[in-house]
Amino acid sequence: MISSPSLQHLVDELERMPGVGVKSAQRIAFWLLNSDRDVALRLAEAIVEVKDRVHFCPQCFNYAEDDLCAICSSDRRDRSVLCVVSEPRDVPPIERTGLFSGLYHVLGGELSPLSGVGPDDLHIGQLMARLGTEEVNEVILATNSNVEGETTASYLARLIRPLGVKVTRLASGLPVGGELEYADEVTLGRAIESRREM
Amino acid sequence: MISSPSLQHLVDELERMPGVGVKSAQRIAFWLLNSDRDVALRLAEAIVEVKDRVHFCPQCFNYAEDDLCAICSSDRRDRSVLCVVSEPRDVPPIERTGLFSGLYHVLGGELSPLSGVGPDDLHIGQLMARLGTEEVNEVILATNSNVEGETTASYLARLIRPLGVKVTRLASGLPVGGELEYADEVTLGRAIESRREM
Repeated sequence: MISSPSLQHLVDELERMPGVGVKSAQRIAFWLLNSDRDVALRLAEAIVEVKDRVHFCPQCFNYAEDDLCAICSSDRRDRSVLCVVSEPRDVPPIERTGLFSGLYHVLGGELSPLSGVGPDDLHIGQLMARLGTEEVNEVILATNSNVEGETTASYLARLIRPLGVKVTRLASGLPVGGELEYADEVTLGRAIESRREM
Repeated sequence: MISSPSLQHLVDELERMPGVGVKSAQRIAFWLLNSDRDVALRLAEAIVEVKDRVHFCPQCFNYAEDDLCAICSSDRRDRSVLCVVSEPRDVPPIERTGLFSGLYHVLGGELSPLSGVGPDDLHIGQLMARLGTEEVNEVILATNSNVEGETTASYLARLIRPLGVKVTRLASGLPVGGELEYADEVTLGRAIESRREM
């Protein structure tokens, strides 16, 4: 029994969030009750604001607020390299590496014949159009390292190579700091095949 | 670089929540962007509502929405047993056990001479007043099992016992399913002292 219906309601709504179970939801709800009114209202407003303001960038299909997203409209990005990812959520991890300064193209999914996702369901036509008009030297295929991601990467590589654009794929191998003992055979096999001379 | 300022703002606000780091915050933000507008607005409303509606129950000092909290005003609770806890967040775990059907009394903290928290800073006067007017047979002291919690429990036991009310304390011992090997000495010592005949 929770002592207040609106507290119970908040816990229920918080529990829908990914990675948040009932205990975390309660912990967050109690924290919200304890915090300043401002903190809680700012969070509520940020949620509403994001739904009101954010749409897809018409160039790269990442989330954007102004016409173009902040990355596409930045003058500090290298416009000659395009990194192709499946979903908007794949952009922040790449940004966090600090090693990529080009532009992105978000496909909006991955090819999956089983789930009925074909090329026309992804932003592949728009990618090809960008490659036709923008001066792109390299396309990095950063789709996931699973069956769908690999299928999508192979499909795109076949499509893009004839344009004379360099096509690269993220390397597979052992995670840095990872131990051989715990690596699965496929990853380890990939690491052996892609071994580098030292 | 995050592609939209209001997305970045939402991530910043989500990251303040307890147990939510930057990666979880991003995951939740992307989930909110992907979900129906209704889901996001319901969450935002639930946050505002909880701040608007919830106050402290004047009887037990747990969170409440109407005058008395849902537990104090329920006619299904056993009014002869009172469970004393430190904070409102300690009530849900006890409720989840399904083994307690009495009423609560929330102290609003624990005695801590070092942090300058004395008896007058907690709802101890109000607890004694309840024991004077309500027909209570047993008080379960369910403060934490740390120094402050034990100090508070001892202090309350000395105060309540003269009233002729039975005072009990939650048992300490090995966590169920826990292994001896991983138990700390103090817990294990407590488990030996409180051993039961089988």
